[in-house]
Amino acid sequence: MSKPRQAKKAPSVPALSESSTPLLDGIDSPDDLKKLSREQLPRLAQELRDEIVRIAAPGGLHLASSLGATDLIVALHYVLNSPRDRILFDVGHQAYAHKFLTGRKGQMGTVKKEGGLSGFTKVSESPHDAITVGHASTSLANALGMATARDALGQDYRVAAVIGDGALTGGMALAALNTIGDSGRKMLIVLNDNEMSISENVGAMSKFMRTLQVQRWFQEGEGASKKAISALSKPLSDLMSRAKSSTRHFFDPASINPFAAMGVRYVGPVDGHNISELVYLIERLNELDGPTILHVVTRKGKGLTYAEEDPIKWHGPSRFDPATGQSIKATSLPTEGELPRQSWSAVFGDAVTELSRLDPRLFVITPAMREGSGLVGYSRAHPNRYLDVGIAEDVAVTAAAGMALQGLKPVVAIYSTFLQRAYDQVLHDVAIENLGVIFAIDRGGVVGADGATHNGVFDLSFMRNIPNVKIGLPRSALELRGMLKEAMRIGGPVAIRYPRGETLTPPANSWPDLEWGTWERLRDAEEGNVVILAGGKALEYAEQAIHDLPGVGLVNARFVKPLDTAMLRELAGQARALITVEDNTVVGGFGSAVLEQLSAWGISTPVRVLGIPDEFQEHASVERVHARSGIDAQAIRTVLAELGVDVPLGV
Amino acid sequence: MSKPRQAKKAPSVPALSESSTPLLDGIDSPDDLKKLSREQLPRLAQELRDEIVRIAAPGGLHLASSLGATDLIVALHYVLNSPRDRILFDVGHQAYAHKFLTGRKGQMGTVKKEGGLSGFTKVSESPHDAITVGHASTSLANALGMATARDALGQDYRVAAVIGDGALTGGMALAALNTIGDSGRKMLIVLNDNEMSISENVGAMSKFMRTLQVQRWFQEGEGASKKAISALSKPLSDLMSRAKSSTRHFFDPASINPFAAMGVRYVGPVDGHNISELVYLIERLNELDGPTILHVVTRKGKGLTYAEEDPIKWHGPSRFDPATGQSIKATSLPTEGELPRQSWSAVFGDAVTELSRLDPRLFVITPAMREGSGLVGYSRAHPNRYLDVGIAEDVAVTAAAGMALQGLKPVVAIYSTFLQRAYDQVLHDVAIENLGVIFAIDRGGVVGADGATHNGVFDLSFMRNIPNVKIGLPRSALELRGMLKEAMRIGGPVAIRYPRGETLTPPANSWPDLEWGTWERLRDAEEGNVVILAGGKALEYAEQAIHDLPGVGLVNARFVKPLDTAMLRELAGQARALITVEDNTVVGGFGSAVLEQLSAWGISTPVRVLGIPDEFQEHASVERVHARSGIDAQAIRTVLAELGVDVPLGV
Repeated sequence: MSKPRQAKKAPSVPALSESSTPLLDGIDSPDDLKKLSREQLPRLAQELRDEIVRIAAPGGLHLASSLGATDLIVALHYVLNSPRDRILFDVGHQAYAHKFLTGRKGQMGTVKKEGGLSGFTKVSESPHDAITVGHASTSLANALGMATARDALGQDYRVAAVIGDGALTGGMALAALNTIGDSGRKMLIVLNDNEMSISENVGAMSKFMRTLQVQRWFQEGEGASKKAISALSKPLSDLMSRAKSSTRHFFDPASINPFAAMGVRYVGPVDGHNISELVYLIERLNELDGPTILHVVTRKGKGLTYAEEDPIKWHGPSRFDPATGQSIKATSLPTEGELPRQSWSAVFGDAVTELSRLDPRLFVITPAMREGSGLVGYSRAHPNRYLDVGIAEDVAVTAAAGMALQGLKPVVAIYSTFLQRAYDQVLHDVAIENLGVIFAIDRGGVVGADGATHNGVFDLSFMRNIPNVKIGLPRSALELRGMLKEAMRIGGPVAIRYPRGETLTPPANSWPDLEWGTWERLRDAEEGNVVILAGGKALEYAEQAIHDLPGVGLVNARFVKPLDTAMLRELAGQARALITVEDNTVVGGFGSAVLEQLSAWGISTPVRVLGIPDEFQEHASVERVHARSGIDAQAIRTVLAELGVDVPLGV
Repeated sequence: MSKPRQAKKAPSVPALSESSTPLLDGIDSPDDLKKLSREQLPRLAQELRDEIVRIAAPGGLHLASSLGATDLIVALHYVLNSPRDRILFDVGHQAYAHKFLTGRKGQMGTVKKEGGLSGFTKVSESPHDAITVGHASTSLANALGMATARDALGQDYRVAAVIGDGALTGGMALAALNTIGDSGRKMLIVLNDNEMSISENVGAMSKFMRTLQVQRWFQEGEGASKKAISALSKPLSDLMSRAKSSTRHFFDPASINPFAAMGVRYVGPVDGHNISELVYLIERLNELDGPTILHVVTRKGKGLTYAEEDPIKWHGPSRFDPATGQSIKATSLPTEGELPRQSWSAVFGDAVTELSRLDPRLFVITPAMREGSGLVGYSRAHPNRYLDVGIAEDVAVTAAAGMALQGLKPVVAIYSTFLQRAYDQVLHDVAIENLGVIFAIDRGGVVGADGATHNGVFDLSFMRNIPNVKIGLPRSALELRGMLKEAMRIGGPVAIRYPRGETLTPPANSWPDLEWGTWERLRDAEEGNVVILAGGKALEYAEQAIHDLPGVGLVNARFVKPLDTAMLRELAGQARALITVEDNTVVGGFGSAVLEQLSAWGISTPVRVLGIPDEFQEHASVERVHARSGIDAQAIRTVLAELGVDVPLGV
């Protein structure tokens, strides 16, 4: 074991005079972990938790869920043989301990930083990462595929999926369970039940899981886990014959069990922080055929008092003092005279809360993203016009369709990346009948640190190809409010798409009139010069790019569908060339809409389309990804120069 | 009641000298139905079934499911007050009896014909059609939205959703159930359990439902239904207090019940062909608060012996003799010398069956579409390399990802319209890691009689905007085989898209080499003339259009992603104009790909993009929709003339 290198600078990690992680220091792979005694495992888990808090303190990581899953991860890696055995983490944001244990501990300070480790599991990052993930509820279908592949190829490794209680209520997970139960294929599903996903957990399954827990803990008391183990200590042949003769669970904490109905053996619930018990159970369960659910109860934020008390706040905290849990404010205070900025989510949340007072038909739906979507205030102000459907984007959209059919004006508040999961519901359930559903698409465009799985750079393309859908890109709080008001007025499916982060514009409280489909000329071009068309976040870059180029025209192309065809036709007739800029893939997005329109008119004005290239973008800051993609101010100036505009260097 | 109008011609329906439907003749709305006595209802149902067989005999309608649901529909309309009360039919293909009873009986001969009634329920067709539908598993989320709207607006109508056992195992339905149970909102969910969806039903839930049935019918015998009713005949207050004190079902046919775990009251199973019992139960259940599942067992094809015996065959039969069930062959026999044609599905099924013998890693997945996708032969030849995941397109795609990660070469056989339901799974689970999953996309392009919900005219757009995805459009059986072989070789996500119906090309059994991304010059253009780029079905029209126009060039643009950029660049430099033709929306499709590429090169050759307009296409024959859309031979000739090509009239 190498001694701590005190001389070397570790910018994001304070140097320690003496290792506080003696056990972890010796672990570079799961094989090393297996050299520890079982009695040492809780101590290792504590070291891991301390390290997780340390790397999370600068902010931006998934803290509470990672702490909660650490004991479980230690137990799984102690028994299973990764990477031969496949351990799948649903969503993948709880797997920091897994990364520490699988050869990446030296890079854990780089998680979510450009060129560093992903915040999720990622196949191309490590052979120990079984799936590349970021969206919820995919692990069971993946595990089904893996177990099927194993059996089809005559192999015999083990497949274990760790899935949270929130993710398990996603339809895709439940449907996968239906086929898993039917398949009879051997796999272990660890239900990591921490009583909440990112938001408060909702839904009947959640209540049912509580029932299982309450019955078990209160009726059987502390002896429950012991009894579980003793049940499993019976001769294996006995257990296996019981398993074959019945689809039901071994011990019967409740007389009703949907897992057993699905054909999956159910064991639990057990204490997810008792590593010794977990190791024992996982070893035993590995000897059984067929699919098994091990229901494990964990506590988010485990070991960190303030995080255990408020796990929603500590889901993904910004910079904090590990000792106290106090937030550390960013040092860049607003300069004098600068107005306080708001996040786009907050602008939306305030707007919809106010608008609800004006229109009793407004109703807001979230798929388990109350906090992220800025809806805490709304949900309190209008509890009877608010519905959280859990992690079920398809249900959110189609429930909105049902509401619209019956006289409400539903707003689906959803992240761009998650709306991908309801493409057909937008098309089939909402758009065919041109129903009045408003999609408030948050995190549109590049999101930065969460990387390829979370970038919202496809929505302009996949929403635009659906007939009847209208799309707006507000550039300011005021425009967002204007678009929301207009969407309520005009009806039909309307998407209002805004980025992650803060607006660059002052807070607004008025309701401006804003006719859908009208662009705004910000600066006229000199005769025969170039005109830039950009909306939303991309418009900020365009403004920066041309501040010293008075001849170049600029249009706030705030509506992507329909286009402002009157203005476009006029511009195309006057300009030497058009440049479109968008925070969206160049395939099928705003630029393509302009190309399609000019082609339909038979107008051959050259158009340069700037957007996110047709490749998945690895995590880095939003600005860096935009620069790499060629849509920032510098990139726009380069294109202007190529088109013959006299662009001064070095600005 | 008006007497039968014998004098009038009824082209699609034989005139009758004396009405064989005396009860139905008097029913023009559900109000008329309520004037019948309960004793008359079975007779009415028989009349409806006879009428359904009569309209289905010319072929192309959904027969077996409609016959099975008729008794249930009569009972629902007898008790509920549509359109005030909302009756939702999942998928909507079983609702012919509903259409007969709600003012459309005079138009039932027009179902699925151009300008006629839809084959599904459709909001814009009748106020009695609560949802516009065609895809499965959407009814519960819609019902949740409707019940929520009703309560939010202080109204008090009833919401009833009829969902089949196949559709209920779709993840979206299960996830909706989770929120419905939690919401406690009053609604009736009728589980229409006919033991199969279009294909054999699969999955553990299906087995579980069988368990419920078997226990009930065999243990309790014929007295079961009587007992059910007597349980419900107890004073309502007693029932309600029991309902409140327990989330469990009233009578306990099995000790495990996932519905109860979801917080939904469960009643059943009951005989779905005993109208009197159904009426009684629905009346009683309507008096209870909260959500209730009524589990009804029906028989697909009810009343028609040959359809009851083979409901898969009779799901959507072609023309038949109602008396015997004998198929009536289409009169247009192949002309002499013409080779027998195959459906695209059969070409695919044969190809994949053969290829499986050559490569043991090939594995085929279907989301409940074995018959439609041409996989009956394959599933028998390679049962261990075949998986039906039920109606769960998302699970199909992500299970394929898991298989690809573990060494298989999975092929997802899926209809274009249903792949819409797995957009995020293609993007997030397959494409980010560039996994080797082959998508065999059947029913790409306009499908005709099934209409707007089923047209596969979005896939080129929504697949193209996903990085790493490759897309091919075979024009012949031979090209399909070549693409399949090439897809196996090159890896990564590959989509091979072909239309509904028959190939126009002879059967093939070789495996041609076909380099991905290479187009084929079918005819060189005269210098400075027009070149048409088209692939797949659209190429047939282009060939017809230019048969007498020797100066016009034609390219088999069989790869949409990547384009054959070398050939495109050369063509764009030589041609006066390009025309792209595609059986896909003009928004973001193949034409846009060409426009984007030329824009990136700064080439301003005019391009005319022909495709399906940005509107949902109502049902009509494929050829009619293509003509309306402006992609058939005549439309292409019109555009050629506009571009200055000398086009003879009247061809």
